[in-house]
Amino acid sequence: MQFQISKELIEKIEQLIEQQHNKDLLLYLNDLHHADIAEIIDELDLDDATYIIKLLNSEKTAEVLMELDEDNREKVLSNLSAKEIADEIEEMDTDDAADIVAELSEEIKDQVIANIEDEEHAENIVELLRYDEDSAGGLMAKELVKVNENWSVTGCMSEMREQAENVTRVHSIYVVDNKQRLKGRLSLKDLLTAPSSAQISDVYIKKVDYVKVNTPGEEVARIMQKYDLEAIPVVNETGKLVGRVTIDDIVDFIKEEADKDYQMAAGISEDIEADAGILDMVKARLPWLILALLGGFVTVRITGNFEDAMTKYGVLFFFTPLIAAMAGNVGVQSSAIMVQGIANNTLRGSLIKRLLREIGLSLLNGLILAGILLLGSHFLLGQAYIIGVTVAISLISVIIIASTIGTVVPITLHKYGIDPALATGPFITTSNDICGILIYFTIAKFILGF
Amino acid sequence: MQFQISKELIEKIEQLIEQQHNKDLLLYLNDLHHADIAEIIDELDLDDATYIIKLLNSEKTAEVLMELDEDNREKVLSNLSAKEIADEIEEMDTDDAADIVAELSEEIKDQVIANIEDEEHAENIVELLRYDEDSAGGLMAKELVKVNENWSVTGCMSEMREQAENVTRVHSIYVVDNKQRLKGRLSLKDLLTAPSSAQISDVYIKKVDYVKVNTPGEEVARIMQKYDLEAIPVVNETGKLVGRVTIDDIVDFIKEEADKDYQMAAGISEDIEADAGILDMVKARLPWLILALLGGFVTVRITGNFEDAMTKYGVLFFFTPLIAAMAGNVGVQSSAIMVQGIANNTLRGSLIKRLLREIGLSLLNGLILAGILLLGSHFLLGQAYIIGVTVAISLISVIIIASTIGTVVPITLHKYGIDPALATGPFITTSNDICGILIYFTIAKFILGF
Repeated sequence: MQFQISKELIEKIEQLIEQQHNKDLLLYLNDLHHADIAEIIDELDLDDATYIIKLLNSEKTAEVLMELDEDNREKVLSNLSAKEIADEIEEMDTDDAADIVAELSEEIKDQVIANIEDEEHAENIVELLRYDEDSAGGLMAKELVKVNENWSVTGCMSEMREQAENVTRVHSIYVVDNKQRLKGRLSLKDLLTAPSSAQISDVYIKKVDYVKVNTPGEEVARIMQKYDLEAIPVVNETGKLVGRVTIDDIVDFIKEEADKDYQMAAGISEDIEADAGILDMVKARLPWLILALLGGFVTVRITGNFEDAMTKYGVLFFFTPLIAAMAGNVGVQSSAIMVQGIANNTLRGSLIKRLLREIGLSLLNGLILAGILLLGSHFLLGQAYIIGVTVAISLISVIIIASTIGTVVPITLHKYGIDPALATGPFITTSNDICGILIYFTIAKFILGF
Repeated sequence: MQFQISKELIEKIEQLIEQQHNKDLLLYLNDLHHADIAEIIDELDLDDATYIIKLLNSEKTAEVLMELDEDNREKVLSNLSAKEIADEIEEMDTDDAADIVAELSEEIKDQVIANIEDEEHAENIVELLRYDEDSAGGLMAKELVKVNENWSVTGCMSEMREQAENVTRVHSIYVVDNKQRLKGRLSLKDLLTAPSSAQISDVYIKKVDYVKVNTPGEEVARIMQKYDLEAIPVVNETGKLVGRVTIDDIVDFIKEEADKDYQMAAGISEDIEADAGILDMVKARLPWLILALLGGFVTVRITGNFEDAMTKYGVLFFFTPLIAAMAGNVGVQSSAIMVQGIANNTLRGSLIKRLLREIGLSLLNGLILAGILLLGSHFLLGQAYIIGVTVAISLISVIIIASTIGTVVPITLHKYGIDPALATGPFITTSNDICGILIYFTIAKFILGF
């Protein structure tokens, strides 16, 4: 519990490796949780990392590998032979094994699979590789405990014990019929309290939540969260029980999705960490900045079109950043609410109703802000009354349009199967800057007549 | 599983309530999961909602109440007497019970607690109310299964069975000494495979992850995610086992925190849903817009100070939205990376090193963007060479300063115990707009000499 990584610890480990004090290293590392060892390895250079992976036994390293940063794992694995990788895979649960194999190059992949001795394990991995990684099939493991509905409680105890040996956490015992079709479940608690003379068909619960292999990960997460499930069985197209998804994988999935959405909203594509390489950072960030820059060209163009105003109403140009900022902020607020509503499945009612609601809200906010602007422009900025009125009217219009764009774009994207999270951040602020400034100058021209 | 809420379903329920067809209602509702019933009730008006709560038995409604929207729950509970609420509380796990009681007004709270018949349950709830709701103490439940290290495996089976009756999910069996201090754990799997003649002290695992009552929720979530735990025991200051946190509550916690951070980054305070009331929406959104508006006043002021440039270099004013947009986008990118790094505990190394890294990255991005700007300003916008150079140099400076602000502000806030998520969204975009425009005109004045 009290494990804490530190510079001193890393230096100590590096020293032990250099001096090849394998005994001390093993003594220290074998006492640590695999997630802690992974944290240490993530801080070492490739040679040292490989040294430790080769030093520890494959039961331990299989788990360590799973916890490494993807980049580091790729590098470490490239230092191992296909046989060595297969030995690691042999020790992993099928879901982890499939994730690792999926990361390998096509050529190595086949070699590794050919080197797995446990034929059933290899077949299971190949089966899992078929599914999309963000679907129930891609998230599930083949390991689970199941009993036939026709067995007796005592009769299946030894069978269950044997199955349980291969399963990290038992959770539920699934009940299947002779054709391996999912019929229900048996909780460990029920088993603990059931009379030993009972038949499975007498005691099992016929109601069981399940998902299909192609159910999207988001939906699996939503169901497991809603019903407080710790594992959910997965069936194939014919209703056959083919695996189960456990909550630890769903926790990771939820966290990753949340991180991705958060970064997307900030204009950072791909799931990137604070310590990612500088080129990865540029790749994730620059495209959005280029988008914003191109959007900026458009605002320059639009503003330039109203150059005539400069002689008489030059002050209008002082307000463009304010108008753009308000348009951007309102748009981001609206789109964030929509994106979250879509993700959490809490949106009800038609698009029109939702839009009217958002416009009503914007009108209310806009009126209050316009009031503040009127006062501020006169008393704080010392502007003429007519300028204040012009900007205030524009502000209300801009806010309404910005919230409309923020509402409609995510819903439309979602409708066409595109991730609405794309519509937050730079995308919305840039398009709202453009619309906002165009509306502002158009209204100003109409009122002031330049 | 296939439960899907629909307008027709709600209308059907409303009809059954109106006609007081209690038998049909009970038949339908008792077959549903409590989370599904809650989804239905969230769509009904208060009278209908109360009708259903009073119709169902308290074992069912206790669970339904937990799943309701907080606003709706508050309303429904205000329609129940203290005795009725106490009856519901009686059926809940201590953690849920404490959450509900904490939402009640001081006066009702005492009445409800006084009406709880199970004295131990009442005491447990009062104990839980003492802890901060976002700490391990606030997230834990008192229900757990524990055995004394001095017992034998067979000897404690009946005791465990009895304890298990009160616990929804068993997960781990905790091992304590005579003073109730946490010593280790016993997995259900170990129990299933242990020889019945063994002593607890022979078979239990001495290594056990735990947290303290005052450990923050984020830290509990991080530990449970890192070590793939489904439950973690909580000890008090003296090492006594006082409760446990289960993964379902942590999943909800992670989701809520992610939603809150996402909204914060979009300038929406408080955890608000897409269907929240319009006044709640205004309260959550308007303050950030006012902040942005006031920031806008400052940009107007700054721009106004460079009015002299208008006669000769009026075109400079066309570029202010572009400069502001770039400053805002870069600042949000930097701060999002920092906020996430802090939240995920992946930041290593000193502030200076991190800052240099970020500045290096900004310089790289800035140079590329400046190049695009130079070309664009000349060929797309037809501006004079000197204007392009001026804006390009300003852009690089603005980007570097914006990323510096985006990096330093979250780290500084975090250092002083303030949630760094506050520093994303409008806060960063507004301050970067101001700095960006100031830098832009200052550099322009220096180069062009107006």
